[in-house]
Amino acid sequence: MRIAVLGTGVVGRTIAARAAELGHQVTIGTRDVTATRDRGGDHADWAARHPVVGLATLAGAAADAELVVNATSGAASLAALTAAGEANLAGKVLLDIANPLDHAAGFPPTLSVLNTDSLGEQIQRAFPQLKVVKALNTTAADLMADPRQLADGDHTVFVSGDDADAKRTVTGLLTSFGHTDVVDLGDITTARGTEMLLPLWLRLYGTLGTGIFNVKVVR
Amino acid sequence: MRIAVLGTGVVGRTIAARAAELGHQVTIGTRDVTATRDRGGDHADWAARHPVVGLATLAGAAADAELVVNATSGAASLAALTAAGEANLAGKVLLDIANPLDHAAGFPPTLSVLNTDSLGEQIQRAFPQLKVVKALNTTAADLMADPRQLADGDHTVFVSGDDADAKRTVTGLLTSFGHTDVVDLGDITTARGTEMLLPLWLRLYGTLGTGIFNVKVVR
Repeated sequence: MRIAVLGTGVVGRTIAARAAELGHQVTIGTRDVTATRDRGGDHADWAARHPVVGLATLAGAAADAELVVNATSGAASLAALTAAGEANLAGKVLLDIANPLDHAAGFPPTLSVLNTDSLGEQIQRAFPQLKVVKALNTTAADLMADPRQLADGDHTVFVSGDDADAKRTVTGLLTSFGHTDVVDLGDITTARGTEMLLPLWLRLYGTLGTGIFNVKVVR
Repeated sequence: MRIAVLGTGVVGRTIAARAAELGHQVTIGTRDVTATRDRGGDHADWAARHPVVGLATLAGAAADAELVVNATSGAASLAALTAAGEANLAGKVLLDIANPLDHAAGFPPTLSVLNTDSLGEQIQRAFPQLKVVKALNTTAADLMADPRQLADGDHTVFVSGDDADAKRTVTGLLTSFGHTDVVDLGDITTARGTEMLLPLWLRLYGTLGTGIFNVKVVR
């Protein structure tokens, strides 16, 4: 599959590397290609280790892709998707990993959208032709991409979205990553539930001293 | 231990029955003892099957107790505790199970307090001499009281509170109920995390078609 990963942070790079490793044709989309290339440090090291992953503008990456991954920060997501371009996104599946975290008051961050709305719904409303599937926003990047490194993958992730085919496509990708328990929560309004898991996730992160944990829905 | 359970709903009755079964001296506190007694139906049947559980006013139950359980609805909790009486609660441990659910707009309910506050914190602020421990609000009543009926108890509950001894007392009670993984999240502000788990819980309840499930923190 041709996959565009919007966002050059840890989540974007981790998902991009994993998808490329599985044989997908992956391009990372960034606001400013030159700035990302010249940034050096972490990203340069990473790019050198992953030469098969392309780098393009947000619009360039999206235009070419069959599936788009939103791995930008929650506060930047709507602007990044706008820059990617409505026409480039129309009819495509968006795997939305972002959480609407507000870091203004320090740790732990609060949520800027919640309870009667979610970032997933905001994106779906802003881009009605996009098939938004909220997923993977409930775990650390390493576990999103390679769940078997914890308890041989015996834990749970969720999908929320209005389009059944899009959820099947995302579930297939997650399964190829190693996820063995992908729970379909229902339509995109159920993204409220997974985004609102973040406050508990952040406190567990503080208590356990590691991000390598996940919830399993025991039933 | 002498335990007062405030609230005559399913949660209150289930916790009261379990604590009594384990040998504690349990009194249910209700706003109007006569009305609860004369209500008939479910409660009368339940009371007949649990003759050792006492029934008293909110104040009467609290006055006598060493540990108080808040099993009232979230919207009624502060009023119920006020009726129980600050002097009757002072210095005691409160196991707070309530969730601040707002049912005004139908299912799923939303939260009336969240993100930068929680019901647990509201109670702690209103009753500074009470040692509030938020716990058990993340599972169905049956699993709160008897976790071994699901996966032999191999799932997680949480405690949040400012007083370490109070958390130890509550953790001891939960362990006697059969809980094997009680995670101490930290101070009472961490109740935000467990209360905000409710939207996900409610969607899972809809998707799975049963309340007999729980999260396990895999780590």
